[in-house]
Amino acid sequence: MAIITLTTDLGLKDYYVSAVKGSILSQLPDVTIVDISHLIPSFNLQEAAYVLKNSFPNFPEGTVHIIGVNTELSVNTPPVGIELSGHFFIGADNGIFSLMFDKVPDKIVELSIQHDTSNPNFPTRDIFAKAACHLARGGTLELLGSLKSSVNERILFRPVSVGDNLRGTIIYIDSYNNAVTNITKNLLKEAGKGRNFSIRFGSHEIDKLSKTYQDVVEGEILALYNAAGHLEIAMNRGKASQLLNLHMGDTITVAFQ
Amino acid sequence: MAIITLTTDLGLKDYYVSAVKGSILSQLPDVTIVDISHLIPSFNLQEAAYVLKNSFPNFPEGTVHIIGVNTELSVNTPPVGIELSGHFFIGADNGIFSLMFDKVPDKIVELSIQHDTSNPNFPTRDIFAKAACHLARGGTLELLGSLKSSVNERILFRPVSVGDNLRGTIIYIDSYNNAVTNITKNLLKEAGKGRNFSIRFGSHEIDKLSKTYQDVVEGEILALYNAAGHLEIAMNRGKASQLLNLHMGDTITVAFQ
Amino acid sequence: MAIITLTTDLGLKDYYVSAVKGSILSQLPDVTIVDISHLIPSFNLQEAAYVLKNSFPNFPEGTVHIIGVNTELSVNTPPVGIELSGHFFIGADNGIFSLMFDKVPDKIVELSIQHDTSNPNFPTRDIFAKAACHLARGGTLELLGSLKSSVNERILFRPVSVGDNLRGTIIYIDSYNNAVTNITKNLLKEAGKGRNFSIRFGSHEIDKLSKTYQDVVEGEILALYNAAGHLEIAMNRGKASQLLNLHMGDTITVAFQ
Repeated sequence: MAIITLTTDLGLKDYYVSAVKGSILSQLPDVTIVDISHLIPSFNLQEAAYVLKNSFPNFPEGTVHIIGVNTELSVNTPPVGIELSGHFFIGADNGIFSLMFDKVPDKIVELSIQHDTSNPNFPTRDIFAKAACHLARGGTLELLGSLKSSVNERILFRPVSVGDNLRGTIIYIDSYNNAVTNITKNLLKEAGKGRNFSIRFGSHEIDKLSKTYQDVVEGEILALYNAAGHLEIAMNRGKASQLLNLHMGDTITVAFQ
Repeated sequence: MAIITLTTDLGLKDYYVSAVKGSILSQLPDVTIVDISHLIPSFNLQEAAYVLKNSFPNFPEGTVHIIGVNTELSVNTPPVGIELSGHFFIGADNGIFSLMFDKVPDKIVELSIQHDTSNPNFPTRDIFAKAACHLARGGTLELLGSLKSSVNERILFRPVSVGDNLRGTIIYIDSYNNAVTNITKNLLKEAGKGRNFSIRFGSHEIDKLSKTYQDVVEGEILALYNAAGHLEIAMNRGKASQLLNLHMGDTITVAFQ
Repeated sequence: MAIITLTTDLGLKDYYVSAVKGSILSQLPDVTIVDISHLIPSFNLQEAAYVLKNSFPNFPEGTVHIIGVNTELSVNTPPVGIELSGHFFIGADNGIFSLMFDKVPDKIVELSIQHDTSNPNFPTRDIFAKAACHLARGGTLELLGSLKSSVNERILFRPVSVGDNLRGTIIYIDSYNNAVTNITKNLLKEAGKGRNFSIRFGSHEIDKLSKTYQDVVEGEILALYNAAGHLEIAMNRGKASQLLNLHMGDTITVAFQ
């Protein structure tokens, strides 16, 4: 069965998510719809990108991923369909694709889907769902509009090297209160060239990387590479971000010796 | 595949919703179950009606919609099955159907489903799910009980005309903090007869209807017809109800010139 | 279609739950995945056990239930697969199975699933999902590892008899603020031997068991056997635990006459 996933900031209490699902099922009865998350903070592209980037590779090739965050459409942010690594992505070209992908998409199409323009405020249901059903049915991207060569770029804070230090920021705080940084395992290894290092933030210093959350005693701070390959500050069975007062955008320094 | 939807106040943390789904899947393995919302505020029929009314038309005909809000059954609020516009609805006849439908249902049946009366506190699982599976399998409403001619009425505050003003109230606040009124596009057009108007609430006045949320600059107040066709007070990328101190039941006045 | 259920503390905002679902669908496209709950309080085995124990009997035999709470694996808490009453359960042997089952499982297998040990922090996706797909496909438990004779025991506070009193505790508070005790209908009947009784907690006393929530007037306290067969303190359309200041672990006394 074809799979369509949904990543939105539509929330869980309103009728919005179910309207999208009803519309999909009306067009394609035999489809599996999977919620990635509907609790993306309103209009937060960075969090949407982190969530979907780490979720989509778990799905089989051919899966269609709808992104319903910042969906307002304009000449500068048209609806697009994208193919990358055998997956399809549908959303507004508001910069999210540049945040999500490390490489250039295999194909980008600006969608020219017909819809009722008297009610322009629900493109996730009225445009993206249509395009997704077409792709899930095995239709081609090319049929949905005209090819284009690039997506809108959005600048993302990347870790910077300052002397013997690598400075990153906290880009995501999960529901366990783990603080995820934008420093990946690959980046740290490349910058470190085998040197020892300690991790500093606020008045804290961690001089050993853990492999699992249980490598330290309960309630103790630790740093590890999380399942997404990012350096993460956590606490064994504790709420790191809350207890250590860590927030989105805070600086984390890896100091090499 | 047959579709059964669920609109309840059962919440997301407990075992209740999954018990209903398990019961459905035990009776009808090949069914698609869709959550409309389980975060209806406890016992709030008006919100349940707004949510389901705007969701169900997105689903294909033949879909069965279970309503698990205020499900206590009594002689005065018996379980019923309803057919309207090709959709089926199952719930307690507690007044919700009069809040949800603008027209008389095509068919109303008082359900006489057998169930274990020693445990009467979970009719959504023990009665509604059974009836829904029967209908989803293609069974008839008539087989589930005896026809009746009307449902219980519940009085809903409707907008009133006072001189050159139309006075409505806020009936729903969504997860973006948009404040939805009970003034629909149709009603406003009918009452306005082409005249200009301004929208007043508290100390605020909006004298232009926007078409989309982005018609004003970020952080500015606006009014528009939302995707459900209701007049809505919003803020471009802001939390209108919170910042403007708008609450359920507050008065909104449309003043015609 | 095979059914796999998920009971976790992964929350709803992150990518974690969808990663598990993507992994399952990559291995077994024709499966129905049902969320039991992802809002188990972090690391809370007792709540996870209460939720899944009351949910799973609603599903058809052959259903596979994944438990993603306290999933850290060690020599003392290995991954296991369990068969009981025709259902399968997959999780870490951290004591949850002793909290959940009143009888000895029909079969217990310690799983020896191959996985990437460089990333050990997501066993629900990397180990449990694999085992679940094998079972959902009709594979045998025995093929997944070696049989063992018992699971880890965790001590649970059970109600105690003190003179003519039965003393229990509050083990769960649901989203309606109903306070569920560990005193079951069977236990109370056995201890009571037909005597009358009153239920005492804090400065409150209830001397009559209700059958439904509406047996008392709105806003009044009541006690009843809930749909799970546990003695529960509730309030008709009110929030009992909040208004009566009831918390997990509080004592409830049944005083027989």
